Amino acid sequence: MHMGLTYFLHSIADKGRDMLSLNPSTTPGESIKSLCNDLLSRKGEASGVALGREIITLYASLDDLQQLEFFYFVNEAFAPDPEQICAAASAVCNDAGPDSLKRLARSIESPRQELFRRINMAPDGTSFIVSLRSDLNTYLDEHPDLCALETDLQHLLNSWFNRGFLVLKRIDWHTPAIVLEKLIAYEAVHEFSGWKDLRRRLADDRRCFAFFHPALQDEPLIFVQVALVKGLADRVQPFLDHNAPICDPNTADTAIFYSISNCQKGLRGKTFGHFLLKQVITELISELPTIKYFATLSPIPGFRRWLKGMETTNLPKALKTIASDTIRTIDFNGQINAQDLKDKKLNQELLRLCAHYLVHCKHKNRPLDPVARFHLGNGARLERINWLADTSEKGIHQSLGIMVNYVYPIIKLERNHEAFVNKGKIIISRAVQSLL
Amino acid sequence: MHMGLTYFLHSIADKGRDMLSLNPSTTPGESIKSLCNDLLSRKGEASGVALGREIITLYASLDDLQQLEFFYFVNEAFAPDPEQICAAASAVCNDAGPDSLKRLARSIESPRQELFRRINMAPDGTSFIVSLRSDLNTYLDEHPDLCALETDLQHLLNSWFNRGFLVLKRIDWHTPAIVLEKLIAYEAVHEFSGWKDLRRRLADDRRCFAFFHPALQDEPLIFVQVALVKGLADRVQPFLDHNAPICDPNTADTAIFYSISNCQKGLRGKTFGHFLLKQVITELISELPTIKYFATLSPIPGFRRWLKGMETTNLPKALKTIASDTIRTIDFNGQINAQDLKDKKLNQELLRLCAHYLVHCKHKNRPLDPVARFHLGNGARLERINWLADTSEKGIHQSLGIMVNYVYPIIKLERNHEAFVNKGKIIISRAVQSLL
Amino acid sequence: MHMGLTYFLHSIADKGRDMLSLNPSTTPGESIKSLCNDLLSRKGEASGVALGREIITLYASLDDLQQLEFFYFVNEAFAPDPEQICAAASAVCNDAGPDSLKRLARSIESPRQELFRRINMAPDGTSFIVSLRSDLNTYLDEHPDLCALETDLQHLLNSWFNRGFLVLKRIDWHTPAIVLEKLIAYEAVHEFSGWKDLRRRLADDRRCFAFFHPALQDEPLIFVQVALVKGLADRVQPFLDHNAPICDPNTADTAIFYSISNCQKGLRGKTFGHFLLKQVITELISELPTIKYFATLSPIPGFRRWLKGMETTNLPKALKTIASDTIRTIDFNGQINAQDLKDKKLNQELLRLCAHYLVHCKHKNRPLDPVARFHLGNGARLERINWLADTSEKGIHQSLGIMVNYVYPIIKLERNHEAFVNKGKIIISRAVQSLL
Amino acid sequence: MHMGLTYFLHSIADKGRDMLSLNPSTTPGESIKSLCNDLLSRKGEASGVALGREIITLYASLDDLQQLEFFYFVNEAFAPDPEQICAAASAVCNDAGPDSLKRLARSIESPRQELFRRINMAPDGTSFIVSLRSDLNTYLDEHPDLCALETDLQHLLNSWFNRGFLVLKRIDWHTPAIVLEKLIAYEAVHEFSGWKDLRRRLADDRRCFAFFHPALQDEPLIFVQVALVKGLADRVQPFLDHNAPICDPNTADTAIFYSISNCQKGLRGKTFGHFLLKQVITELISELPTIKYFATLSPIPGFRRWLKGMETTNLPKALKTIASDTIRTIDFNGQINAQDLKDKKLNQELLRLCAHYLVHCKHKNRPLDPVARFHLGNGARLERINWLADTSEKGIHQSLGIMVNYVYPIIKLERNHEAFVNKGKIIISRAVQSLL
Repeated sequence: MHMGLTYFLHSIADKGRDMLSLNPSTTPGESIKSLCNDLLSRKGEASGVALGREIITLYASLDDLQQLEFFYFVNEAFAPDPEQICAAASAVCNDAGPDSLKRLARSIESPRQELFRRINMAPDGTSFIVSLRSDLNTYLDEHPDLCALETDLQHLLNSWFNRGFLVLKRIDWHTPAIVLEKLIAYEAVHEFSGWKDLRRRLADDRRCFAFFHPALQDEPLIFVQVALVKGLADRVQPFLDHNAPICDPNTADTAIFYSISNCQKGLRGKTFGHFLLKQVITELISELPTIKYFATLSPIPGFRRWLKGMETTNLPKALKTIASDTIRTIDFNGQINAQDLKDKKLNQELLRLCAHYLVHCKHKNRPLDPVARFHLGNGARLERINWLADTSEKGIHQSLGIMVNYVYPIIKLERNHEAFVNKGKIIISRAVQSLL
Repeated sequence: MHMGLTYFLHSIADKGRDMLSLNPSTTPGESIKSLCNDLLSRKGEASGVALGREIITLYASLDDLQQLEFFYFVNEAFAPDPEQICAAASAVCNDAGPDSLKRLARSIESPRQELFRRINMAPDGTSFIVSLRSDLNTYLDEHPDLCALETDLQHLLNSWFNRGFLVLKRIDWHTPAIVLEKLIAYEAVHEFSGWKDLRRRLADDRRCFAFFHPALQDEPLIFVQVALVKGLADRVQPFLDHNAPICDPNTADTAIFYSISNCQKGLRGKTFGHFLLKQVITELISELPTIKYFATLSPIPGFRRWLKGMETTNLPKALKTIASDTIRTIDFNGQINAQDLKDKKLNQELLRLCAHYLVHCKHKNRPLDPVARFHLGNGARLERINWLADTSEKGIHQSLGIMVNYVYPIIKLERNHEAFVNKGKIIISRAVQSLL
Repeated sequence: MHMGLTYFLHSIADKGRDMLSLNPSTTPGESIKSLCNDLLSRKGEASGVALGREIITLYASLDDLQQLEFFYFVNEAFAPDPEQICAAASAVCNDAGPDSLKRLARSIESPRQELFRRINMAPDGTSFIVSLRSDLNTYLDEHPDLCALETDLQHLLNSWFNRGFLVLKRIDWHTPAIVLEKLIAYEAVHEFSGWKDLRRRLADDRRCFAFFHPALQDEPLIFVQVALVKGLADRVQPFLDHNAPICDPNTADTAIFYSISNCQKGLRGKTFGHFLLKQVITELISELPTIKYFATLSPIPGFRRWLKGMETTNLPKALKTIASDTIRTIDFNGQINAQDLKDKKLNQELLRLCAHYLVHCKHKNRPLDPVARFHLGNGARLERINWLADTSEKGIHQSLGIMVNYVYPIIKLERNHEAFVNKGKIIISRAVQSLL
Repeated sequence: MHMGLTYFLHSIADKGRDMLSLNPSTTPGESIKSLCNDLLSRKGEASGVALGREIITLYASLDDLQQLEFFYFVNEAFAPDPEQICAAASAVCNDAGPDSLKRLARSIESPRQELFRRINMAPDGTSFIVSLRSDLNTYLDEHPDLCALETDLQHLLNSWFNRGFLVLKRIDWHTPAIVLEKLIAYEAVHEFSGWKDLRRRLADDRRCFAFFHPALQDEPLIFVQVALVKGLADRVQPFLDHNAPICDPNTADTAIFYSISNCQKGLRGKTFGHFLLKQVITELISELPTIKYFATLSPIPGFRRWLKGMETTNLPKALKTIASDTIRTIDFNGQINAQDLKDKKLNQELLRLCAHYLVHCKHKNRPLDPVARFHLGNGARLERINWLADTSEKGIHQSLGIMVNYVYPIIKLERNHEAFVNKGKIIISRAVQSLL
């Protein structure tokens, strides 16, 4: 950077410090409060960028205790004024005219939001706010009184990370390393064993797409990994083998979504998954006209837990005997391995129990299993339940190696989604039907 | 676009229409309401993108009356529920605990905002919302009851067009024509006479920078034109002459900001100007270390109007005689031309009156003149008042040809800004001081 | 540019000047010779870039006479040494072994080529060499002894502008203005009337593609303009009307190539046209699957000239009478206009004569008409001859308003090309056949 | 790829095969010859791209023997015609006029060159030709009669890889993985231990730059690694430690070039090194004005070999005793390690011998050591000889752990280079002088 510029920027910071009478001996915890006060109270927004920059720098130097203290400070110091609210609320009770409503709305909007909007002006401000929320979330359980702050952050980020602002990008071996290393870090379903594994999963017979937000450079928000194959894949291990031969994508007829990972803890609760899948399907149709089927090969994260804790009494008669036998056979407390499962010929029994779990075990008229809930909610069809489809330790542990294909039938997606949302209806294939 | 894809998208739209029971014979005004209802009421956000797209398409086909009707519909149908607000307000009056506050906040947030957040998901959604607000603003004077809708749009756009999301880009002859033609359309200070003029103003001894928002592709929000010269420029015509010889930018010591234009009516009230100037100064320092001075050559849009309507009684004694003589000499109702001004030797008199206007004529402790208010508010110094600096018809009409240099003194900007904001203090040069 | 850097570069140039003992009072003509000597003789290539840069700068300051003198200097001073060649040639006559052949080859390669290879290292070196050849070509007629230099330049540029190095780019309204203004300058078939015309010709129902060379930034080598229409277009005026309504490209079934222009005089003789057309066809097939036909709407630049100078005696009997009548009717020395042509009902006669001209008038077994030669040589079929297809002054002047459709039948292109090249066979449609 | 397109391309290939009467049962070795004949003999260049593509594909399937056979075929079948050459040579001997010279030049240019120019038109043609030359070079020692082919390839590539066509790019962690993995593969001086090592060497206190050629996408030709430090670095191990702390580049005053690697065997003999270093220095001056010194930390690849084979009789008297003692102490046949060297206190003795080796041991008036020859030839100064500077196994093996700093004194580079080239003069520092 040019000397003149450095001088310029430093002088701005110095002036800021000067005007703020920031005593260099003040603790960072005190300084950051002072800066926040200043950022909000200062008439005009003239030095917002510089102040925001300093707040971000200072925050990075806070220890855990100071961080927590900072959250409490922001939560309270920039809360809306209860007296003003009460006055405005009374006025509305008397006369709910547009002016009194406007005043009430204004009095109830928390100054915290404006604080964050101003911090956001600084370089990397958005990234800072996302990580701030991620930090805050680690305290919420023990400090539920911070939830007002959480609500504000959630509200802001929800508005800023509107799907309309997201950009879909294909990820492949031409992608900058700074992005690729983040895939390795964020992959949540089938861990990468290293760069070699990553390279194979980005080869010609695979696709990987991610959503990005313009203000979070080089940071994927969510990404999906796709394998291009012939027929509906029933085993995930071939997709994870970095020595697997590379197929010709132009001969494939099916795209298998075999991993979807959310990347940003600070965006918890914001769901991009169905937007991503739909746009990726659109991209694949456009790029590869031979692809006719779109399906997942998905884990069943809740199956074994459910099986272990299952009350057989709630089961339909036909399953009762199977269930108690099966469960007796499995040593839920010891370590189960794939060979055991093969040996014990539990195949049919477990598949039937799994079908029951996926289709009939519900909470508030929605499937218990989170992955089922997601795909069925998107309008997918429960197509097939696959025996010994994921023989990794994690796969056996979660669902005794069973995986599911959810099929995305392009033309019926909306109709299925409607039926699911309005009547809780789950669309299943004949094969699954026959297991029930 | 591939056939499969076209089919896919059409089928989605068809399904949508199907499910919505959109009767093709329905008027667009009715259909768009129906779609909005659907977009908001539908559980899940599954078909938000498709619905948003249709709303955008339909809106384009509305005539003026239908447009107005649509605004009223959105304003009322998606207003917050007054009964809920009252109930929540009463609850807060009784007990302002976090839960009741949260409920009140939720009840008062207008569903209109959520409607627009969902429309924003569609392609070009942001651009649509910006133009919607631009349309709405043409009705507000005659339909003040739409102001609640305006407040919501303003709130949303204010949040989305946060300075942290803006991207500065240099504009030159390498810029795509689709952007350049917008400069021609949006230039608000010194009109472009055509592509030849544009080309000259983007030559090597000029700079042009604009802010863009990632969701408004190819659409500048605001741009500034800079001339690189030796010494403080006192005439604007040389900058507008497309035959003017091109100077070597490396020999320049001064950057003259000679035009700043806002581009988006739909972002009215959102001020990006001072952010732009500061970042452009930073860029220029970095690119051209020989540039030592940053100044404007600015119009004085309110001067002639003030002069014409001036009550001499309010003037300081020293100016009273001058003023009445001067004013008598000028035929405010006829057309004034540059030659007249030269002939009449009004030089000193007008400069003194202008200095008085800029420095002493205030409203709420801020300069009356909007351009002065802007630059002085940014911390600039009123440096020089230039006689016959803009001899164009517009220049003579607005300010009898007078223009002003505001100097941006890098190191003192913040201090000046503070003095201005807190005490209404205007920083002026000795030269201007001597005119007072 | 940073001061240190400027100093660095100047110091290099100064050193260079120093070492070369370039007397500042020397004429540019002398200096440039001195620099060329130095660039070639200097052991190592250490300062090649700096010397090349100076040669380029100096050349720009030469007047016509100095330019010519410079060409003679390079032609002679860096010619291969005839004595060495003779010695090497004798040696080869005695014994044509690999060593003597190698020596001969080395002795005959002109040092001029190495000179240009070294100049090419400087920034914009390639662009300089292209324009050098363009300059040289203006002298060749009167100075045929410069043809050795021309041969060398042609050889080098032929190698450097190999089709494998060219990059196809789509040109549209998103293209930088610096490229677009060159289209306006280079368009050779249907002149652009201005930016408005250009903008229309780059709209959604048009395509424009150009070849670029990586070393000639922002400089198209050749470009083609395409209109997407339904059916085979028979009139060019609608393509040149900037108020013509824009059609939906997805409903088009035919791509009409209505203008191809070479841009670089310095690359005269290098033919990129057939490469361009083939790759553009490939692009269009990929982008717009509904496009089934690829055809031109082409001028017949030699028709009127041929008609005027035609010896009717050479015509087949059937045409003789027609021809003499027709020719008598047309006032070749006066100005012909479209209305005259309509009035005189020369329609059929002229079309028959034109068909004869295109198909039967040959030189060395190739069509006389250059445009016919080009397209038929590429394997296109002479499809249709259109009456009053170009009613512009130029169109009437060149070919009495007649234009031709050459159709590019994707699958038969190679076969047609073979037949044309090997046997001079021209593929024509039945419609044209019936005119003969 | 779209079906229509696939069909189009296949049909072209089929036609090609058809016309060439390529019998599918023919061996690839026969087919490729046939295609080459066709590519060259075919009038017009109409199907050059398709034929080139097939040649490239077929070549990839050749085994070693077929490859060699192919080289012999090209070497002989497309050699210039000796009879024509002799006839043209005789003509020149009789009369060396421009026409006879031109004919001779034409007769002597090998058709092989035209063959390669046509192959180059196909996609990835340039890359193919580079790798072809790399393959050819493995045969040259045993098949010296292929040297005519080698000469042609060298000539072509020399012309195409002119420095004017190269593009300098900065390499960092934002660079695509496909390029980064090539750095790992090509690094020739200090091997990368993996991606972690690579990442550290691309951190903020390092710079890496490479030259690319537009036709060889994602393929660096040569790259250099730079460390930004304070003072002249005397040890390389800290640069190779991926846990080393990252310094602030803005506080550095010295750029150390610690590794330069050529990447393309097929471009053997083409030297880009000095161009790269000069341009990188220019870049660094521009980016980091605090950097004042540019130097290398270089190996001395020939030192130990020289030491081992040294005839002490040739040494100056003062070194004779030192040398024989030292050499006796070192066990050149066993493995030497850093500790031994420390223990034996050979420090001063070895440094003096090394200085002697670098400065006085020459061949044809140039330093024996290739790295010294390169940097001194570029105009660098032999600044310092560092004891135990590279304690890796390779470092000890090559030069007993000694490394050298060559300093690039910006302003004197050209002068030093001249002195070196013209008089063989080596510029050395006082420190080195005192060792001699």
